[in-house]
Amino acid sequence: MAPDTPPPDSSSAAADTQAANPLLVEVTRGSQVESRHRAALAVVDAAGKVVLSGGDIDRPVYARSAIKSLQAIPLVESGAADAFQVSAPELALACASHSGEARHVEAVTAWLARLGLSAADLECGPQLPGYEPALYALLAGGGDATAAHNNCSGKHTGFLALARHLGAPTRGYVTYEHPVQQRILGVLEAMTGLDLGAAPRGVDGCGIPVIGIPLGNMALAMARLGAPDDQPEARQAACARLRKSVAAHPFMVAGTGRFDTRVMELTGEKAFIKTGAEGVYCAAFPELGLGVAIKVDDGAGRAAEVLMGHLLERFGILSEKQSRSLGGLASAPVLNRAGLHVGDTRLAPRLSF
Amino acid sequence: MAPDTPPPDSSSAAADTQAANPLLVEVTRGSQVESRHRAALAVVDAAGKVVLSGGDIDRPVYARSAIKSLQAIPLVESGAADAFQVSAPELALACASHSGEARHVEAVTAWLARLGLSAADLECGPQLPGYEPALYALLAGGGDATAAHNNCSGKHTGFLALARHLGAPTRGYVTYEHPVQQRILGVLEAMTGLDLGAAPRGVDGCGIPVIGIPLGNMALAMARLGAPDDQPEARQAACARLRKSVAAHPFMVAGTGRFDTRVMELTGEKAFIKTGAEGVYCAAFPELGLGVAIKVDDGAGRAAEVLMGHLLERFGILSEKQSRSLGGLASAPVLNRAGLHVGDTRLAPRLSF
Repeated sequence: MAPDTPPPDSSSAAADTQAANPLLVEVTRGSQVESRHRAALAVVDAAGKVVLSGGDIDRPVYARSAIKSLQAIPLVESGAADAFQVSAPELALACASHSGEARHVEAVTAWLARLGLSAADLECGPQLPGYEPALYALLAGGGDATAAHNNCSGKHTGFLALARHLGAPTRGYVTYEHPVQQRILGVLEAMTGLDLGAAPRGVDGCGIPVIGIPLGNMALAMARLGAPDDQPEARQAACARLRKSVAAHPFMVAGTGRFDTRVMELTGEKAFIKTGAEGVYCAAFPELGLGVAIKVDDGAGRAAEVLMGHLLERFGILSEKQSRSLGGLASAPVLNRAGLHVGDTRLAPRLSF
Repeated sequence: MAPDTPPPDSSSAAADTQAANPLLVEVTRGSQVESRHRAALAVVDAAGKVVLSGGDIDRPVYARSAIKSLQAIPLVESGAADAFQVSAPELALACASHSGEARHVEAVTAWLARLGLSAADLECGPQLPGYEPALYALLAGGGDATAAHNNCSGKHTGFLALARHLGAPTRGYVTYEHPVQQRILGVLEAMTGLDLGAAPRGVDGCGIPVIGIPLGNMALAMARLGAPDDQPEARQAACARLRKSVAAHPFMVAGTGRFDTRVMELTGEKAFIKTGAEGVYCAAFPELGLGVAIKVDDGAGRAAEVLMGHLLERFGILSEKQSRSLGGLASAPVLNRAGLHVGDTRLAPRLSF
């Protein structure tokens, strides 16, 4: 993969004839494998050199929520974060897919209020909390899902802050043509090394544009997030501030018991990892100057998480002891409703990368 | 596939080298395909002749909840259903993966009471209702998930009725060795044409045994459910009674807005269709003498549903008009949190079956 490679033809007919990505993760139950996941992954350095790969890393992929950190760069480098005294926990929320716990929702609500806005200005749609005790508390109190509970509400609040700072309308900030989204597109182009004007695109679960980016270039952008030496000074500072904010507030990026939070509580600034919908996972390993992008063909997050766990071990980001303290990373138990351990999501026995 | 074929070696190492099943379903978002699902499927007649197939139909697969109808046969053929005056809606519940709506939970609770039992005797574990208004109502009233809300609670109540009728202990009725599960194993052997004593096995989400059955034999068993002419008379009567019960009470098998319910409200006895966890879907088309079994490699229910929709159209089970009234069956819209139509789950453009 060269950083300037244009995205290949992505029509479904062409995609249909592409070779199958390798079988990387399997889910067992009792004495046999029950389900199987194919995936591609790329580990790339900040110069675009592919350090490790599996599967087709040139096929354009929607990164979904896995690149919220890149989408938060304009909030910081534009001066909006300073103008609105955006705190480190708030910057972590701008990079988050949070579980809708009280701390997340309260922080978003307070940040919106400081902008002179409210949850009614968020265009992400409502969502029930992903953390079950928060769900119980909300509904037992007669409450309902709001846009502030949406896992993307911090990202959207960051977009609103940027819109205010740019003097752009806040309404319609999710549209492709809006200055906020165009700024983000420019940052994605610089970080991926691609002209994305003609890239495949669609609309995300939370309403913002998604852009098709080859997996190798997505990993390159994540490497640059960790090692942005070739980027303008304001962007270098923005990347460092975002990384430090997340490392200091890993709870804000996900929530109680979540993989991203548990891992970054241990790694601090050694790793920035971020899950996305439809089986995408991205990471920056700044000390190693590496970026990671994973896409599970079928969209299964359980498989992407096991692959990310494997890479965290393989690149020595987590020590064996740390990995053990998390219950092991390269597999995850399958529990049934009574809590019995009935199988495992694990790496396929013969990895082809 | 011959009905008496023993299951192939199912060790994970062997499975790993098997050829990839064909790409049958894709999920689009905007201008590109976002995720891809591979699957196998078999349509078989009651004599074991394969009428249509795609992918590897000899690989053993856990049918999960897709064969609850077969697991309910002993409840009827043993005389337990008559002894306990089990009604048609209750028999439909025994075949159900219901959404935990009030009608489901109340019916299960009343049936348990008639057995002198309660939800505390169910060994399926608790589960929150799958139907959102039922979830809201439960939690807003200060309630909590119970085993009666578990989507499998009707099946388990049927098992308890059978245990009582057999004079077996009710406690431990989910274990492989319990007379209830051994009876079911015997029925599965007769219906699939296989000796399943050495088949791969594990524990289901609700605690009962799951047995690895080649997909072709699973389809054969479903064909026999619809056309059990070669089975003992009591079993023929049991199959007919279960089919009629479900056809008359399709709400009890799933719930508001669910695919199984909506389809069977239209088809009546022309089709019995049943979803299962991890991308399994089974059906009987009794008038055609056919059985269907689908397994999506990666476990995605969204893909299995689109494949079942395609087969319902392809075999003329639903007319074009009926299919249109359901919003089309061979694709399903992907909506984002704001309710916008942002993509489609659809058949892959060049089907290989």
